[in-house]
Amino acid sequence: MEAIIESLGECRFLSPLRHRFAGMNGFRTEEHRVIYDDSIEGVRDIFERGLSHLHFEMAGPREKIYFDPAKTSAAIVTCGGLCPGLNDIIRGIVMELYHRYDVTRIFGLRYGYEGLIPRRGHVPLPLRPESVSTIHTFGGTILGSSRGPQDPVEMVDHLEELGVDLLFIVGGDGTLRGGEKINAEIRRRGGKRCVIGIPKTIDNDIMYLDKSFGFDTAFAEAVKAVACAHVEALGSMNGIGLVRLMGRHSGFISCYAALAGQHVNYCLIPEVPFALKGPCGLLETLRYRLAKRRHAVIVVAEGAGQDLMNINSADTDASGNPKLGNIGEFLKEKITEFFEKRRIEVNLKYFDPSYIIRSVPASPQDNVYCLRLAQNAVHAAMAGKTGMLIGQWHSTLVHIPFELVTQGRRRIEPSGDLWQAVLECTGQPVRMS
Amino acid sequence: MEAIIESLGECRFLSPLRHRFAGMNGFRTEEHRVIYDDSIEGVRDIFERGLSHLHFEMAGPREKIYFDPAKTSAAIVTCGGLCPGLNDIIRGIVMELYHRYDVTRIFGLRYGYEGLIPRRGHVPLPLRPESVSTIHTFGGTILGSSRGPQDPVEMVDHLEELGVDLLFIVGGDGTLRGGEKINAEIRRRGGKRCVIGIPKTIDNDIMYLDKSFGFDTAFAEAVKAVACAHVEALGSMNGIGLVRLMGRHSGFISCYAALAGQHVNYCLIPEVPFALKGPCGLLETLRYRLAKRRHAVIVVAEGAGQDLMNINSADTDASGNPKLGNIGEFLKEKITEFFEKRRIEVNLKYFDPSYIIRSVPASPQDNVYCLRLAQNAVHAAMAGKTGMLIGQWHSTLVHIPFELVTQGRRRIEPSGDLWQAVLECTGQPVRMS
Amino acid sequence: MEAIIESLGECRFLSPLRHRFAGMNGFRTEEHRVIYDDSIEGVRDIFERGLSHLHFEMAGPREKIYFDPAKTSAAIVTCGGLCPGLNDIIRGIVMELYHRYDVTRIFGLRYGYEGLIPRRGHVPLPLRPESVSTIHTFGGTILGSSRGPQDPVEMVDHLEELGVDLLFIVGGDGTLRGGEKINAEIRRRGGKRCVIGIPKTIDNDIMYLDKSFGFDTAFAEAVKAVACAHVEALGSMNGIGLVRLMGRHSGFISCYAALAGQHVNYCLIPEVPFALKGPCGLLETLRYRLAKRRHAVIVVAEGAGQDLMNINSADTDASGNPKLGNIGEFLKEKITEFFEKRRIEVNLKYFDPSYIIRSVPASPQDNVYCLRLAQNAVHAAMAGKTGMLIGQWHSTLVHIPFELVTQGRRRIEPSGDLWQAVLECTGQPVRMS
Amino acid sequence: MEAIIESLGECRFLSPLRHRFAGMNGFRTEEHRVIYDDSIEGVRDIFERGLSHLHFEMAGPREKIYFDPAKTSAAIVTCGGLCPGLNDIIRGIVMELYHRYDVTRIFGLRYGYEGLIPRRGHVPLPLRPESVSTIHTFGGTILGSSRGPQDPVEMVDHLEELGVDLLFIVGGDGTLRGGEKINAEIRRRGGKRCVIGIPKTIDNDIMYLDKSFGFDTAFAEAVKAVACAHVEALGSMNGIGLVRLMGRHSGFISCYAALAGQHVNYCLIPEVPFALKGPCGLLETLRYRLAKRRHAVIVVAEGAGQDLMNINSADTDASGNPKLGNIGEFLKEKITEFFEKRRIEVNLKYFDPSYIIRSVPASPQDNVYCLRLAQNAVHAAMAGKTGMLIGQWHSTLVHIPFELVTQGRRRIEPSGDLWQAVLECTGQPVRMS
Repeated sequence: MEAIIESLGECRFLSPLRHRFAGMNGFRTEEHRVIYDDSIEGVRDIFERGLSHLHFEMAGPREKIYFDPAKTSAAIVTCGGLCPGLNDIIRGIVMELYHRYDVTRIFGLRYGYEGLIPRRGHVPLPLRPESVSTIHTFGGTILGSSRGPQDPVEMVDHLEELGVDLLFIVGGDGTLRGGEKINAEIRRRGGKRCVIGIPKTIDNDIMYLDKSFGFDTAFAEAVKAVACAHVEALGSMNGIGLVRLMGRHSGFISCYAALAGQHVNYCLIPEVPFALKGPCGLLETLRYRLAKRRHAVIVVAEGAGQDLMNINSADTDASGNPKLGNIGEFLKEKITEFFEKRRIEVNLKYFDPSYIIRSVPASPQDNVYCLRLAQNAVHAAMAGKTGMLIGQWHSTLVHIPFELVTQGRRRIEPSGDLWQAVLECTGQPVRMS
Repeated sequence: MEAIIESLGECRFLSPLRHRFAGMNGFRTEEHRVIYDDSIEGVRDIFERGLSHLHFEMAGPREKIYFDPAKTSAAIVTCGGLCPGLNDIIRGIVMELYHRYDVTRIFGLRYGYEGLIPRRGHVPLPLRPESVSTIHTFGGTILGSSRGPQDPVEMVDHLEELGVDLLFIVGGDGTLRGGEKINAEIRRRGGKRCVIGIPKTIDNDIMYLDKSFGFDTAFAEAVKAVACAHVEALGSMNGIGLVRLMGRHSGFISCYAALAGQHVNYCLIPEVPFALKGPCGLLETLRYRLAKRRHAVIVVAEGAGQDLMNINSADTDASGNPKLGNIGEFLKEKITEFFEKRRIEVNLKYFDPSYIIRSVPASPQDNVYCLRLAQNAVHAAMAGKTGMLIGQWHSTLVHIPFELVTQGRRRIEPSGDLWQAVLECTGQPVRMS
Repeated sequence: MEAIIESLGECRFLSPLRHRFAGMNGFRTEEHRVIYDDSIEGVRDIFERGLSHLHFEMAGPREKIYFDPAKTSAAIVTCGGLCPGLNDIIRGIVMELYHRYDVTRIFGLRYGYEGLIPRRGHVPLPLRPESVSTIHTFGGTILGSSRGPQDPVEMVDHLEELGVDLLFIVGGDGTLRGGEKINAEIRRRGGKRCVIGIPKTIDNDIMYLDKSFGFDTAFAEAVKAVACAHVEALGSMNGIGLVRLMGRHSGFISCYAALAGQHVNYCLIPEVPFALKGPCGLLETLRYRLAKRRHAVIVVAEGAGQDLMNINSADTDASGNPKLGNIGEFLKEKITEFFEKRRIEVNLKYFDPSYIIRSVPASPQDNVYCLRLAQNAVHAAMAGKTGMLIGQWHSTLVHIPFELVTQGRRRIEPSGDLWQAVLECTGQPVRMS
Repeated sequence: MEAIIESLGECRFLSPLRHRFAGMNGFRTEEHRVIYDDSIEGVRDIFERGLSHLHFEMAGPREKIYFDPAKTSAAIVTCGGLCPGLNDIIRGIVMELYHRYDVTRIFGLRYGYEGLIPRRGHVPLPLRPESVSTIHTFGGTILGSSRGPQDPVEMVDHLEELGVDLLFIVGGDGTLRGGEKINAEIRRRGGKRCVIGIPKTIDNDIMYLDKSFGFDTAFAEAVKAVACAHVEALGSMNGIGLVRLMGRHSGFISCYAALAGQHVNYCLIPEVPFALKGPCGLLETLRYRLAKRRHAVIVVAEGAGQDLMNINSADTDASGNPKLGNIGEFLKEKITEFFEKRRIEVNLKYFDPSYIIRSVPASPQDNVYCLRLAQNAVHAAMAGKTGMLIGQWHSTLVHIPFELVTQGRRRIEPSGDLWQAVLECTGQPVRMS
């Protein structure tokens, strides 16, 4: 199975980049591809079953492009919750379009998909190199954002009004599904506009990606909060530092924060169920730990332990995600109750640093990653590719069709080496049930 | 009025520091004093009324000391909530005692005043240069802390058992009152032990001090949270970043955070009452601001606006302070309600970074300040002074009797230049009532 | 002796700030003054000699102002080497003029005093709130800077051409002397323009000031370099970390860096001479230390040990300062030579972080300090004061005549408590000669 | 070609980790392998030529181990220049051995390979969890380091004396070649000791690795220096910030620093030659840029432009590397000369932050990476593997034989996407010759 990328048509224009690469083999073709599964078993399967495995087209500049730079307009939209690196992506797209492809008509759409609904009254922001040159030093998005879908028909109407040829969409799961619909609506009308996504999820849970942008920054910031929780835990008799971190479906931030800071004694994630009660449950093992060490640090991903609470899983938020119970507050209450009953003094301090974690500026690592995602999103768009997103797989930037990534989520494998490393460094019970 | 410092008796030993200062006029005497009020009006009063004003003895090493280093033992206790710099103080005292005065028997008492109550079972920690050499790079206190008073009789019994001659107490208001009682009990028994305080309050509200240690670090950390609130506010339509900061009686952290980051549109402090309702109240002016600018950042000190909530002010916490209502949660609710009623979409993000702010390591500024407080606390103790604390007044380190600082609190003067500077930089209404 | 501030004339306009302070006693008058020497001895002298001592006028807004906001123009110039906080000062002046006094015609002069010499071709930059709103998050100065004086006649000609009424000058020693000349030339012509200085010296060596802006940031940054030198020193057998820091005449940065990080074993400053040779000289005591501890960290201020080198002290740099020998390179060479001769392996790593230290953004502490300096510079200017600068003395912002501060330099007193604290924490020999 | 890992013999002991993974498929076997080249072309080659390509054994815990934990001793040595993460590696190895495998006899060898030469007099440091628990918060290595090889016979003699079964070597190129020799000498004697390497190179230039530890930290720190160079360049007329960064053979740090900060106008690396003179040379294009923009930032890797200087390439340093000319100082001189001749004022500021970059503590990203390298080094050692190192290839931790990585260096491909991204973001001429 090749991951086939939709294309607007034949590339008839010579890339303005050709002067830069003159004599160097700098352009990519559709022949450059990487395989999804690089294990020997995977390759053996290919060997026997004849290349039927998944592989991705490599990203990069194309020698011939679809759009005529002089007549091309572009727009950028950022959707969903904040994530470090959004401004880097915006800046990177603008700079690449402007300086490398000479595309100078670029709009920033305000407040997510709302910015494509004229009656909302959000006027698009013209973007130029001067207006974005230092934005990567700030967190958030200069365009603003919003949650939730909008009507694809209305949105494509507005794209036509604005004359937008290239639409860059930065957002998560739901946003990318919205991008699919916009792309479908454009196709339905026979339009020659392309839609390129840059997947955003601070939880790092997008399939077919090494990592999502902003994740490096986010867990580094989480480490600071966990270090503070550790200091608080040490600072009083039977101190407990309890930190709720992001991670609706996947515990990547929690795991990396635990591994980096080396302060965490319990790391609770959605992928690994745990019990409160019983001899191996959180509460009894915590009692044992406090008796022995007098302090403990607990990190819990927001999606962990949902089965322990009575949640109506039919409720959804503005983005259409099921509403989660607040596992942090829940644990705080249960732990306090448990020790009060046993007349054991504990000093629990609760931390919920999510808004701080997601709104800091991108780390240098993410600065680089976002820039390269942005540069390659522009290359893909100018080459007339559409309905796809830019991702990194096994250290190579690739093109991935929308429908592939919106099918599932990346999760931590309880038998895999990441979770094992966490168990080794926290020393928590392997099974808490 | 001189601020008279109690003394254990005649200083009969030559300071081991005399070799260091040989030929240099490095020692201080009791004649070195600074006046409290250095305004022309203040001095004119002195001029006319003959030196009746308050003045403080300068801190510093004395040429002759009271205690014989070879036979002297010391103990350190840290009490109350965490504050950046506690470990710096501990380290500074140990290093000064050990390396400069050759006092080698030093105890760290565990978990605040509880550490002086043997039946609590907290074994004192012997402190040596090796065990404290890097602790200033971590937040919190290696000794642990606790809130609330203990029986002075029991505590002095234990000091006698341990043979502690010098007791260093680091803590706030209540702790210093506890120190007064310990000192009184020692005097009652005719003991020759001294009690030296180092005042701690992250709120910066101690009287007769330029500033309290940890404050510089704390507001710098608060600035980061406020910057994130600003990013969040900008990141969505009618975004509101609401940050609750420390400050039970005084709004210093909130004011400095507002001045430093330049992001704050409303700074609400205990010293300046405000109304929610009415044309100049918070809610209406916020509505006006959102209509004009689409985002707002509000910083509120925890002790602000207590009159707006129905609080039973007779309730107290473990330290004996009246329990405050949670003004942050209260404002969050009132603001949400107000705009919901008017069907105006707002996106409020609430931040409560207090535990993070107080548990980070000290800034270089506070490293220096804590070290100098610690060094001078040791000088005072070795000279047989007692019932006093080390403070800084008008850039000079001085000795202040316990009873002076526990009489009141330093507060922000609404007509003074600090509050004016805040008003100038937030642009908030001068009167919100 | 009062420090008398020159004034352009009678203040006939009501301050636009009066609405803000209605009912509050927020304005300052010339009666508000602080005395320079607040020691008991100092006050006793006043008492006996009748108020003949130095005292300063307090800064702050005046109820009546000299300039009519609607007809007033201002200009800002930054001179000399970079220092953290320059952009904060620029931003603060612009915001205060614009938002509080409704002065909207503000120029930024480019590249120091060169910006006042038209034939240099530097076009003044119009400054507005939008153009300065985030500049405090960056180091350096958006206006650029240059060293050295320019002809006062030419400069005042250009001020007249531009119609500048208020000139704000940010710079050091030489710059302020230049400001005096501009002021004198304006007076000579009978002009009604004012010149307000904000003293800048990263070395913290300006007389009559508690501290200079940027100093807090600078030594905090220096601490980082010294910590790295410590890591390098520990990282190899007989490792020596040698760090040259700023401080032409005064060792404040070196001393504070030593106190804050607690890594320094030798702190060498201009105020305290030291010998290389002899039993108490640097080299022999260093040999002893390495034999005992295997590593050492040396911090040297750039102006220290100049007597040890053969320097032609008649040479001067562009700012007119005598050229210093490079004591860092000199010590590196001498130390290497000394140990090579004795066939002792040492691993010396040399650090010269000055350009990094001076170009970082201001710390929150300095953000606040710069803002308040800027706000008060504007208050003074609008009130028609001239030939003066804004400083902080004993925690109060005051007006100081130019000629007072350019008379001398603040230096570290070898018998004072700062240097004693350094000796106590480095453990270096008291006398190295 | 399989990358075959040498083994000490049959694994007869059950891993103490089996309790942790009971019921989970947590152990790895030698069947788990990843292919080196995951491009379609690569796989097609395999397909046609029958699995002859390079593939690596996956790292991870083995169900059966070679060494009996109760009788096993280990030692760690760190060699060569400092690199962020060394202490993380030490800590990770100690914690894993102690807590997971119950190996409690662990030595830290002092000052690199010198620590294995008894007559050097460096006593091994016993390492325990308490002694390493916070070392990852500091830069450098607690063991010290040294450059250069030692006699393998002497070293193995000492390993036998100490009874060391597992030797962990952290170092670069030369160090790993030394490790090969130690391993060979052990084999020659028929010993049952294993040698496991963890490759260290701040330059990120080791073959067959996604990245080397410390690189993320290093370039992030480099970004700070480059940002300061940018501030300095902007701060004066025709300001030039010239930064020399690490990178003897490969320009990774320079390229990543350029991409992250977005300040760099010229990025000069060893892989891409450049001329000083001529219309496309550095000097003329720099003149053009200054005329247009008035400032420029140049980053140069230490190994770049060596052909421009007259260097005797036969000279080598203590590690046996050819001595490089100082390209930073050389450019500084040439640029100054060029503009002086043309009487154009430039203000060049030169930065050499290498010692600062390499001695900071590891970033959270590197904390995690180092921990996982350390954990897997212990897994490999306990399983009796030897003569190999732990690396990461395409996001998977793998075992790589020593001889493979010491054959060559990873370099930046001038036609590859990393260099293209740099060209796109600096805007520098593609060919400067």
